[in-house]
Amino acid sequence: MGQRHDTITFLSDLGTTDEMVGVVKSVIRDMAPHATVIDLTHDIEPFDVRAGSLALARAVPYVAAGIVLAVVDPGAGTDRRAVAIEVAGGNGVLVGPDNGLLAAAVALAGGAQRCVVLDDEGHHLESPGATFAARDVFAPVVAALCNGVDLAELGTAIDPALLLPGLVPLPREENGMLHAEITWVDRFGNCQLNVGPDEVSAWGDRVRVSMGDVVRSLPIVRSFDDIGAGGAGLVIDANGMLAIALARSSAAFELQIGVGTAVVLGPSDGDDAGATDAITTSVHIRPSTS
Amino acid sequence: MGQRHDTITFLSDLGTTDEMVGVVKSVIRDMAPHATVIDLTHDIEPFDVRAGSLALARAVPYVAAGIVLAVVDPGAGTDRRAVAIEVAGGNGVLVGPDNGLLAAAVALAGGAQRCVVLDDEGHHLESPGATFAARDVFAPVVAALCNGVDLAELGTAIDPALLLPGLVPLPREENGMLHAEITWVDRFGNCQLNVGPDEVSAWGDRVRVSMGDVVRSLPIVRSFDDIGAGGAGLVIDANGMLAIALARSSAAFELQIGVGTAVVLGPSDGDDAGATDAITTSVHIRPSTS
Amino acid sequence: MGQRHDTITFLSDLGTTDEMVGVVKSVIRDMAPHATVIDLTHDIEPFDVRAGSLALARAVPYVAAGIVLAVVDPGAGTDRRAVAIEVAGGNGVLVGPDNGLLAAAVALAGGAQRCVVLDDEGHHLESPGATFAARDVFAPVVAALCNGVDLAELGTAIDPALLLPGLVPLPREENGMLHAEITWVDRFGNCQLNVGPDEVSAWGDRVRVSMGDVVRSLPIVRSFDDIGAGGAGLVIDANGMLAIALARSSAAFELQIGVGTAVVLGPSDGDDAGATDAITTSVHIRPSTS
Repeated sequence: MGQRHDTITFLSDLGTTDEMVGVVKSVIRDMAPHATVIDLTHDIEPFDVRAGSLALARAVPYVAAGIVLAVVDPGAGTDRRAVAIEVAGGNGVLVGPDNGLLAAAVALAGGAQRCVVLDDEGHHLESPGATFAARDVFAPVVAALCNGVDLAELGTAIDPALLLPGLVPLPREENGMLHAEITWVDRFGNCQLNVGPDEVSAWGDRVRVSMGDVVRSLPIVRSFDDIGAGGAGLVIDANGMLAIALARSSAAFELQIGVGTAVVLGPSDGDDAGATDAITTSVHIRPSTS
Repeated sequence: MGQRHDTITFLSDLGTTDEMVGVVKSVIRDMAPHATVIDLTHDIEPFDVRAGSLALARAVPYVAAGIVLAVVDPGAGTDRRAVAIEVAGGNGVLVGPDNGLLAAAVALAGGAQRCVVLDDEGHHLESPGATFAARDVFAPVVAALCNGVDLAELGTAIDPALLLPGLVPLPREENGMLHAEITWVDRFGNCQLNVGPDEVSAWGDRVRVSMGDVVRSLPIVRSFDDIGAGGAGLVIDANGMLAIALARSSAAFELQIGVGTAVVLGPSDGDDAGATDAITTSVHIRPSTS
Repeated sequence: MGQRHDTITFLSDLGTTDEMVGVVKSVIRDMAPHATVIDLTHDIEPFDVRAGSLALARAVPYVAAGIVLAVVDPGAGTDRRAVAIEVAGGNGVLVGPDNGLLAAAVALAGGAQRCVVLDDEGHHLESPGATFAARDVFAPVVAALCNGVDLAELGTAIDPALLLPGLVPLPREENGMLHAEITWVDRFGNCQLNVGPDEVSAWGDRVRVSMGDVVRSLPIVRSFDDIGAGGAGLVIDANGMLAIALARSSAAFELQIGVGTAVVLGPSDGDDAGATDAITTSVHIRPSTS
């Protein structure tokens, strides 16, 4: 027997309008009644593996020891692999499809120690259809892990190096500018960049931010209320990343930006005196790509 | 005393934007702190008893032993009856309004063994208003059942045959065609029919599908990825029903179909050579009703 | 050590589309695994302190003993105070920002007995950014309270009289009329007023209701189905308040009213014979303010 677990942290794109998430929890409740499920979110956009991967990565430093179940699985019912990945000396197991969804979380948890493909059908539910792997494969496997079944009993061991990597968007430097993008817009309209404050610290306490034709000089601040009324700023957010934010309103809505918007950061110096953090003013600049 | 229970599976149309579901759970937590609530969904469209009934029926085969609480209750506060229905030799009790919501679930659980009308007000909460039966009647009754109070103590026994039946939409055969309808559209836009694969198996691995003026010949497949890019198919879904689906996009959106859309199925033979599973092509046919 | 707690009732404006609520629960699960979290709602409109305060007040009479965590916190990361407030002889502690959000709930729970500002950083999480107080301050403090840490250990005691008051909208009487407003629209479109039935009981079983240019004579009823088809009524709702409601449809949608709409109530007498509860008929009246 392996280690028993009593917490399952669950993220998916299944939504909560249908009963699907509840059915997955019902299966777990039936098979491992001692376990508690913590929902991260089930509102990842359908099939958006990258968004699911990033949400999971933001949460991982805070997740309780136990099982992480992540299901954004456009290939359910095909021959894409379902996997369980052991991390942290057996204190954690990540379960989900092998499509890159788990990759960043596994790396943040210190890397994979053991990995199996969930191909032992004795641990799955019989099903009238093959489309709902979360219910028929992942839920009973997660319950088995909670009950102390060892990873090795769940399927064929594979080399963790063979897992599909994630698609983490990295910024790139070009002519002294940092070409970044918005990777997440939260409920409040704050737009997280794939850039942390250390990467711009050489430029001081203001940074020139270009989005499309618009350029602004934005202050780096530590709280939303450090942004002046009507202004914008780069907040050091709760994940230690820079986020384009407005004071008590939605940057995404007001600035018409969103996930995937390209953002170029650079030093905020004399030559853009016309730039400002006032969101009602903008100046046009030459294309910033070389 | 009756049997104690420790799981409550909860479905409603109360939504989660208001605090109502949380208040129901608070009452249960206060009175039966050992019990765990599993949410199926609370986003059934307001007053849509049939949609609630179907969601419950899809979930029932997977629900853990214990109490099922279902509240889609347009008649709350009137003289519609509130009931508790014992099934499965006392391992399960379904609680809710007697408006057809529970009927399919009761049948799938093997039929009602005992039934009471919840008219013993000693088991209800006193309330400043009569409109919130989920909080004032159902929650304390569910808590009492979890605590081992016998069904008979909660109200007047009635003959289960007197419960209101559900409105389950059945397909009908006419001139060799099967007249069906879409009963559920899930988050991914898959459109479940009230027809299973056995009912069309005589027609082979393709079926002619007519919706309004449009007819297609669709393949019967076992996973979404078995549908070719740009095509449509009839997937054998997770409930063992046929669902009209597209490969990684929403059939409901792309084909402009939804719950209640009439769908006529028939053999896919020579005379509709023009039909195809390509969703960008459609042919007109004569009205299919006789 | 103080009293241990095992229930946390949680309300916020964090939404459930992002992983933030799940991360707060993960921190609590990690630090106080014996505690259960009951969600009231996380869909309070961003920054709407008053709406959060009212939802909490409606729920408080039903909340289980233990901790209430409420986070609608536009000032997170600034010098607004985070507080914990003991009520009910230590059986309850309310935790959140000191911005009026908790005030009505504290009053309904019998008033504050002890209060501390959560300024002992030894009980907070270290964080890469200061914007997520729910995760970094409130969650570990709530877990500490569940584990029996005494309020006094969490920060500096303050006089509860110094807490920010809430903004509870009260109706005012003027020339024999009651000037009220809509304070909540629920999922079904029922529009709760800040007026209870006792305040209009002198006027009998019908009340004249003016909204903008429209006046109606509405019956006071005890259930939605007591309203005739096509008509409107004033239901005595589940909180013991009057709510403008239609029979099985949305009053908010049909009457184009919402939170903040001014509503003037008065006696339904001879001079508005033209008024009716039929929602398709309306009469114009002189401005009702004096």
